[in-house]
Amino acid sequence: MDKVRFGIVGFGNMGTGHAKNLLSGKITNAILTAICDIDPKKFDLLDEKYRDQVKFFTDAEEMFKSGEVDCVQICTPHYSHVDLAILAMDAGLHCIVEKPADVYTLKVKKMIERNKTNDKVLGIMFNQRTNPAFKKMRELVKSGVIGEIKRTNWIITDWYRTQLYYDSGSWRATWAGEGGGVLYNQAPHNLDLFQWITGMMPSKVRAFCHYGKWHDIEVEDDVTCYVEYPNGATGVFITTTADAPGTNRFEITGTKGRLIFDANIAGSKKSTLTLTTLKIDERTYCYETDEPFKAPPVEETVEVELEENNPQHVGIMNNVANTILGLEELYAPAEDGLNGVMLANAMHLSSWLDKEISLPIDDELFYEELKKRIAISKPHTVREKVVAQ
Amino acid sequence: MDKVRFGIVGFGNMGTGHAKNLLSGKITNAILTAICDIDPKKFDLLDEKYRDQVKFFTDAEEMFKSGEVDCVQICTPHYSHVDLAILAMDAGLHCIVEKPADVYTLKVKKMIERNKTNDKVLGIMFNQRTNPAFKKMRELVKSGVIGEIKRTNWIITDWYRTQLYYDSGSWRATWAGEGGGVLYNQAPHNLDLFQWITGMMPSKVRAFCHYGKWHDIEVEDDVTCYVEYPNGATGVFITTTADAPGTNRFEITGTKGRLIFDANIAGSKKSTLTLTTLKIDERTYCYETDEPFKAPPVEETVEVELEENNPQHVGIMNNVANTILGLEELYAPAEDGLNGVMLANAMHLSSWLDKEISLPIDDELFYEELKKRIAISKPHTVREKVVAQ
Repeated sequence: MDKVRFGIVGFGNMGTGHAKNLLSGKITNAILTAICDIDPKKFDLLDEKYRDQVKFFTDAEEMFKSGEVDCVQICTPHYSHVDLAILAMDAGLHCIVEKPADVYTLKVKKMIERNKTNDKVLGIMFNQRTNPAFKKMRELVKSGVIGEIKRTNWIITDWYRTQLYYDSGSWRATWAGEGGGVLYNQAPHNLDLFQWITGMMPSKVRAFCHYGKWHDIEVEDDVTCYVEYPNGATGVFITTTADAPGTNRFEITGTKGRLIFDANIAGSKKSTLTLTTLKIDERTYCYETDEPFKAPPVEETVEVELEENNPQHVGIMNNVANTILGLEELYAPAEDGLNGVMLANAMHLSSWLDKEISLPIDDELFYEELKKRIAISKPHTVREKVVAQ
Repeated sequence: MDKVRFGIVGFGNMGTGHAKNLLSGKITNAILTAICDIDPKKFDLLDEKYRDQVKFFTDAEEMFKSGEVDCVQICTPHYSHVDLAILAMDAGLHCIVEKPADVYTLKVKKMIERNKTNDKVLGIMFNQRTNPAFKKMRELVKSGVIGEIKRTNWIITDWYRTQLYYDSGSWRATWAGEGGGVLYNQAPHNLDLFQWITGMMPSKVRAFCHYGKWHDIEVEDDVTCYVEYPNGATGVFITTTADAPGTNRFEITGTKGRLIFDANIAGSKKSTLTLTTLKIDERTYCYETDEPFKAPPVEETVEVELEENNPQHVGIMNNVANTILGLEELYAPAEDGLNGVMLANAMHLSSWLDKEISLPIDDELFYEELKKRIAISKPHTVREKVVAQ
């Protein structure tokens, strides 16, 4: 195999974007050979000059069995991610799914299980893992420079959406159509990074999800979540689609220092990553010093230099193609996607049952509770003049 | 009355500090005429040249009835604040109490009740209300420039204390001696400002207090609290005495903008107050715009200029003296102290009962729960070589 032949399923926002990257040659070792969408009109979105090279399908399974593709890129609504990924693997294909991995852990686990019995590459579009600031944060935490983590705090409220956004599709922000709101559509990246950067999954979650608080929708558009980690650390995760200006500030405090990422939304500055280190581990200092009030002395506070390269979607797609060709290790395996879905599920479950939830969650219990909401879910009224985004 | 004659009760850390301010003439319309401490040796702390001017008492009531003082400044342990204030008012004196107003709402209410039936000035040492940044924040919120508040977030984790600090007194950080930890000793200022700046008391509190988590103490040294306000806004308040470097960042998001105070602890910059305003109210924009993704346009982001003057304790004491003389309005009335104690009590109650607490709290219930902890409280072991701080 010289070039990996990509087939895209779901030719909407994300699908058309990924197609552009493939067609413009940005994915060095991959080409686009097929597109699938249940709506045949979507093929018109493809420039005429590519129509010989790219086959069009309206049935996913047909595309998977056509022999035209090596790797399927799944860009369909959340609920179909796992079903399509399993179908693709059954057809002997590699796969990359959009985030979230799916809507509920019970289902995501099926996809991971299926992948264990084959040798196919199964990636997930966690493109924000290629952001230099987040890569650096993970690297710094891993290096031990801030010691053991004691506290995390991510205020990620810059996912602004208007009522018109929600009115642009009947499935949007409904339990039956999307299975959730900001935690499933906008913040999955942050839920992933929250555990990827720290290298820790919370063991307990107490969340306060507000449903249709700021918009006329069924699902959550405002979430505050308190977490506890196995090592005793605590954390807070806050997200919404209604704050303007929104904030994107992620602080991690350890026993030997602190890291602060701040995107400085609506401010005059660029994103910054600030590292403060201590001369002595706080836990040691606390019990050994002769000082009652003074904090452990600071070694230094520096603004961490970040690499310019921020490949995002293109970076993840290149990595998947190169992993298939045996040239690289998979950077964002789909099994990692379980963690973000687990966190989102736990946050809902905590709000629905009004109590603290231990992780890993009870997959069946969450699904039962979700089904209750799907049962009374109604399609969103679509505003006439809205062009689907 | 030319000058208000101040008498200080409790000649420890705070008492000696206030005495210095009075003796150095920083309190324009007040003089120090008496000091009371149960330990007669404390009088040695006063410079010899002042011993003619300042009478010493070991019994508070005796001082109150001596005719030597017009205003009593109470700097004793938390549990005695209200008792002494009531005694002072009964003796016909004005009063200023240290923060917190006392340990529990049931008691604070008695002091407020007593003050309603006399014309005495009853102030509280909320000196951080004189900080130019906090004054400005309150003024800006009141002005309506950020619209109606939707979200508050205060990470106030720069109250670092070592184990030696706690070991410096047998009463420290015990239920019987102090009645609480960081919420009662370090963060009362922030609990006051949290409601004073926003002009809103939460209606619901869900807190996660950790007791003796980072130090060998009985009480809380790590708190994360989620709040809801009557208008639907939500908030988070985080404090600890174990983070290094600590953070002091208070963000308030409204429908028309956002305010961020950041003390930039351990950073290279000074405290900043950043104001971002929108061209249109977010709530209007959300439902009226033809844009699906774009947030309401930003009018401007500015670093708010702050006045230099930061009088702190001296400012509050001057104001109390001048209020007694009829020259000013009382800036920090002791009845405001109820709010901070209410918040601290609610946070404990939420943790103890493991549930959300509605405000105003059940005063009796809190006191009953507190008494259970006092009943099993033990004095702290004091380390020999420690000088009391």
